[in-house]
Amino acid sequence: MNDLQDLFNPKSVAVIGASNKAGKIGYSIMENIRQSGYSGSVYPVNPREKEILGYRSFQAMPDISKPIDVAVVSVPAQLTIEVARQCGQAGVKYLVVVSSGFKEIGNTGLKREKELLAVCKEFKMRMVGPNVVGIMDTHSPLNASFAPGFPLQGEIAFISQSGAMLLAIFDWSRSVGLGFSRFISMGNKADLNETDFIWTAAQDPKTRVILCYIEDVVDGQRFLKVITEASRRKPVIILKSGASSAGARAASSHTGALAGSDLAYDTAFRQCGVIRAENMSDLFDLAVAFVNQPIPAGRNVAIVTNSGGPGIIATDSVEKYNLKMARFGKDTIEKMRVALPDEANLYNPVDVIGDARTDRYVAALDAVLDDENTDSALVLLSPAAVTEPEETAKAIVAIQQKHRQKPVFSAYMGGEGLAEGTRILTKGGIPCFTFPEPALKAISGMVNYSALHKQLSDKQNFAERTKVDQKSVKAVLYDALKDRRLVLLGNEATQVAQAYEIPAAPVHLASDAKEAEILAESLGYPVVLKIASPKIIHKSDVGGVKIGLENGRQVAKAFDSIMESVRHFMPATPIYGIEVQKMMPKGHELIIGMSRDVQFGPLLAFGLGGIYVNLLQDVSFRLAEGLTTSQIEEMITETKANTLIRGYRGSEPADIGTLVSTIAQVARLSLDFPEITELDLNPVVAYPDGAVALDVKITVSYGDNQEECLP
Amino acid sequence: MNDLQDLFNPKSVAVIGASNKAGKIGYSIMENIRQSGYSGSVYPVNPREKEILGYRSFQAMPDISKPIDVAVVSVPAQLTIEVARQCGQAGVKYLVVVSSGFKEIGNTGLKREKELLAVCKEFKMRMVGPNVVGIMDTHSPLNASFAPGFPLQGEIAFISQSGAMLLAIFDWSRSVGLGFSRFISMGNKADLNETDFIWTAAQDPKTRVILCYIEDVVDGQRFLKVITEASRRKPVIILKSGASSAGARAASSHTGALAGSDLAYDTAFRQCGVIRAENMSDLFDLAVAFVNQPIPAGRNVAIVTNSGGPGIIATDSVEKYNLKMARFGKDTIEKMRVALPDEANLYNPVDVIGDARTDRYVAALDAVLDDENTDSALVLLSPAAVTEPEETAKAIVAIQQKHRQKPVFSAYMGGEGLAEGTRILTKGGIPCFTFPEPALKAISGMVNYSALHKQLSDKQNFAERTKVDQKSVKAVLYDALKDRRLVLLGNEATQVAQAYEIPAAPVHLASDAKEAEILAESLGYPVVLKIASPKIIHKSDVGGVKIGLENGRQVAKAFDSIMESVRHFMPATPIYGIEVQKMMPKGHELIIGMSRDVQFGPLLAFGLGGIYVNLLQDVSFRLAEGLTTSQIEEMITETKANTLIRGYRGSEPADIGTLVSTIAQVARLSLDFPEITELDLNPVVAYPDGAVALDVKITVSYGDNQEECLP
Repeated sequence: MNDLQDLFNPKSVAVIGASNKAGKIGYSIMENIRQSGYSGSVYPVNPREKEILGYRSFQAMPDISKPIDVAVVSVPAQLTIEVARQCGQAGVKYLVVVSSGFKEIGNTGLKREKELLAVCKEFKMRMVGPNVVGIMDTHSPLNASFAPGFPLQGEIAFISQSGAMLLAIFDWSRSVGLGFSRFISMGNKADLNETDFIWTAAQDPKTRVILCYIEDVVDGQRFLKVITEASRRKPVIILKSGASSAGARAASSHTGALAGSDLAYDTAFRQCGVIRAENMSDLFDLAVAFVNQPIPAGRNVAIVTNSGGPGIIATDSVEKYNLKMARFGKDTIEKMRVALPDEANLYNPVDVIGDARTDRYVAALDAVLDDENTDSALVLLSPAAVTEPEETAKAIVAIQQKHRQKPVFSAYMGGEGLAEGTRILTKGGIPCFTFPEPALKAISGMVNYSALHKQLSDKQNFAERTKVDQKSVKAVLYDALKDRRLVLLGNEATQVAQAYEIPAAPVHLASDAKEAEILAESLGYPVVLKIASPKIIHKSDVGGVKIGLENGRQVAKAFDSIMESVRHFMPATPIYGIEVQKMMPKGHELIIGMSRDVQFGPLLAFGLGGIYVNLLQDVSFRLAEGLTTSQIEEMITETKANTLIRGYRGSEPADIGTLVSTIAQVARLSLDFPEITELDLNPVVAYPDGAVALDVKITVSYGDNQEECLP
Repeated sequence: MNDLQDLFNPKSVAVIGASNKAGKIGYSIMENIRQSGYSGSVYPVNPREKEILGYRSFQAMPDISKPIDVAVVSVPAQLTIEVARQCGQAGVKYLVVVSSGFKEIGNTGLKREKELLAVCKEFKMRMVGPNVVGIMDTHSPLNASFAPGFPLQGEIAFISQSGAMLLAIFDWSRSVGLGFSRFISMGNKADLNETDFIWTAAQDPKTRVILCYIEDVVDGQRFLKVITEASRRKPVIILKSGASSAGARAASSHTGALAGSDLAYDTAFRQCGVIRAENMSDLFDLAVAFVNQPIPAGRNVAIVTNSGGPGIIATDSVEKYNLKMARFGKDTIEKMRVALPDEANLYNPVDVIGDARTDRYVAALDAVLDDENTDSALVLLSPAAVTEPEETAKAIVAIQQKHRQKPVFSAYMGGEGLAEGTRILTKGGIPCFTFPEPALKAISGMVNYSALHKQLSDKQNFAERTKVDQKSVKAVLYDALKDRRLVLLGNEATQVAQAYEIPAAPVHLASDAKEAEILAESLGYPVVLKIASPKIIHKSDVGGVKIGLENGRQVAKAFDSIMESVRHFMPATPIYGIEVQKMMPKGHELIIGMSRDVQFGPLLAFGLGGIYVNLLQDVSFRLAEGLTTSQIEEMITETKANTLIRGYRGSEPADIGTLVSTIAQVARLSLDFPEITELDLNPVVAYPDGAVALDVKITVSYGDNQEECLP
């Protein structure tokens, strides 16, 4: 994939719609390019001007007749197609289309956007936008945007789908003194999108942390592959909004109903190593942490404070954010005992007491950072009579230099009196907050990244080790397609499962009571009878299931009773017959399922099953794409069901290996057959040796006329 | 209860340990009293001075010979007892003991603190502290503290257990311009504590919001009664730390194990209407909201923004904080359609588009606030070329004046360019944030307070309507006490339950297989056999339960099998015999339990029961003290079990009335018998008509030698 090197560090930039009139966007862009210190060639294009801001202006693109890497387009929307064509003919590599009037204004704009994209594709140009603020690279340097100024130089790349958000952050960042490597406005993402920009930032040596604000992901499958690789290189932190607007997805399976609209994003981000920020503050707190501090080796935090209350509050946050209070070794305690007064608390949180000057902070912080049990440190300071906020700040910065591999954070709790100390800390790279909580949230984010990062190095994909019989699946799907059925019959679904070595109890379809009796005799008692109808999803709810049938008489009676009950509840429903299944011994009831996400493909579920699955909602999720065996194992561990199957209160542990391979095979089946939209194995009964799905439900789609056939 | 009027607005103040030396605490206190503009009499006491800061200084207390309301004590700890005695003899009403060297330094200090308290009690003096910064009242005005200055005047009372926290907030509040009515440092809380100070602030006409930082509550039962009343008058917001340090409580019951160390506080706060702040930022965000804005009538929020991204982010937060997006009426939409450009989004979030000046904000905000479906509004502003942050700020303030009953919040997203606008908003009482999320969190906190407040008006206590037979309970407890048993036998526990009309299935104790058979015959089959031993809590885990026994032979066999299994697992355990119980029909398995909290008394639990109770952890909690019927109903509604018992997937609804009365009776039993420390009804099987506890476990304590007898 392209590293977009010529986009961010072009040899030449044309500005189409450049202007000499202050206040015009075409003027701001020119002014920004000039003021940013851009050293390449600049070609303003404006038929009515001879010169713009000291640059020779051209009538039109063909007049330039020099190689052009980037063309920034700021002309009325209806002119952009023709401009793009001229750019293509002139050999332009990248278009940055600032103009608005595209997808965001509705159908007319969408049509225009498609035409514009077609021209770009025709000439193999790549496009940023349309409808963007522009792009900035503080190291090239290049400011090809209409933002009011240039960001401070730094190592954070900020990529935003919202131009307003970009401008707001731009304004805010300058007032708090935060530096950036790149600001990228993605606009409508007609061509280049988050995946491209994150990837190119991952390759940019001047970028150490990648921040991203998005409202959606354009190509989920590509995102998963590429961003996994990007996250291996540097932290990718994303604020994804729109969780509330997506609404619940239509779903006819348990798994589908459990997988909320935002869940696939959550799962995708975690699976490819992305840290998901909860809000704007967290996004930047994390960025500041990653840019300035090393990643902690573990969860153990040491706290040094000059007062008890804030120490307790910080300790609470340590627990809240899944960190641990470091337990110091004897040496550390002894070192502090010598240096600190008797009343000091030498255990974590270390309290150097209200009358502490800088020397006590130095002794304590140095000692705890020396301790191998400390992975990170947080220094708290409250103003008291003898407190030395500035001297202490300088000392903290110096001590951290001595312990470069361990991150140090601070909370200076107070106002004006501590402002200079805060400034010294911030300048020295020690993130400083007013209250302790956000510091610990940031440390926790770093530790979580570290855990995700380790996971990414485990590349062992489950799929290599399994057997599949695609032919049998196709045969079943062919029958269903012929009838245009969207829900497979029980015996069909079971065949599909078995073709992928997914253990499923065989079912046989009986069309009358006599046939059911004969099937039961051949299977052996006890048996279960279940209604077979493409429209009935919750079979128990309509009296469609009878269990524990011990003989032919009971089977015949159950057959009639089910028919009567189902006819009563759902008189107009088509019924294919009644399925006869051998009754399996009792065991832990689990669910394994799949629901296909529009963006990210098959989303797998595992958890407590049975009829209470929706009530208990004890389910964990993973995307099938790129899934590894250890991720499947982790997926199982996250559930309460895990406690049960590991041997709960005297019961024998279940066969975890079979569960792992079953999940892996469901993943493989889902990846191999995109036409399978939903799959529920519920319950899967887990035994000490093996597991078996008692009910397999598979929903398919043929990509046309689905509405007519949907159950 | 005392309103402490003479403490916060005294006619005279003595300062014992007053000093003329700058830097001394006794000097700071004198300086603060003088500079605060205190208008009463001031009597410095210092044997070596004639005059201090212009006030005549006294050799000792007896020399003053005038009535003294408050004596501030700042002398070495060892002298405080004698000083207190002199104060008592001089008729001082309140001591404010600034001196440290008490409980906080260990046993010597604790002894001293007790002596000091005894002297106060002897003379009927009330004490603040010891180990405090002091107290401040900006309206009296009086600054009887050693804080570096006086807070800005306002309507927030801040009560802090930590002096350092108080000083930190003091410093911070001055730099952000936040005003206070009172600052109270509680120190060691030997006498006056949070309950007293919250109550007096609730009565103070100059205080509108009460903020409190505490690490513990001194007297839980009194806190519950008094703070419930305080919350009825004004918002009480508490940050309680120390959740992590308390550790898990020792517990031998399911309920005890489920009730975490911090849970009783959470429950207590909610039950008496207190808003619990998650952290320092929330504490003050809420305070600012309550002081400046009216309480919203409901959850419907209107959002007005000049850019899409922030609007989406705010919409996400609306959902996250359990608020709702207001749905505007046709009139509102029409009003906005006339005033706003075509591209504007007229539905919530209202987007007035990036080129909006003040007029569009005015039109939109006025329209949405006029709408009866809007309960509160949030205005978002991102900087763009034509944005008018200051003009818009003024307009927002003016519009809110027009709609005084609806709160308005703002988020000005940016930096320096928006600082003046932010200042105008803050000054005008419109809380202004950098990002939208904390604004919505504050609105949510206000709405939650409103809901809690409504609940407090429902005073109907369950206890009036129920019958109890205390004699039978005492008879059972007497037998247990004689044997010094801490866990009642099954049949004893059942008798206790039945005495309080708690429905429990009768159990009978059999000492051999023959007796079990005879009991089973008399009860009727099928029956259940359960091991009876004071040491066995999880009976199933050791093979101590056999169910569904259909005849005498099965009973005899089960008896022997249980004995063998229990002897195998727990060879040294005392066994009282085996309990025989009639087997009850199947139904929803629930748990109702009680675990006695050290601070707040009986803590009741309700949820999904059976053997998976600890695994599923679907349990809600309430304190028995002051519990109302509607709180019990709410308690049931909070659980997943609620879905089940209301009739889940075709099953008949359970008898909720019986569950409510059973919980009420458990509450009553627990309040009547403090010696009952834990109680588990698990499972309680709920039927469409009635419910029955199959297993009743009651643990008692006799207040002495408990360790020896504990199971």
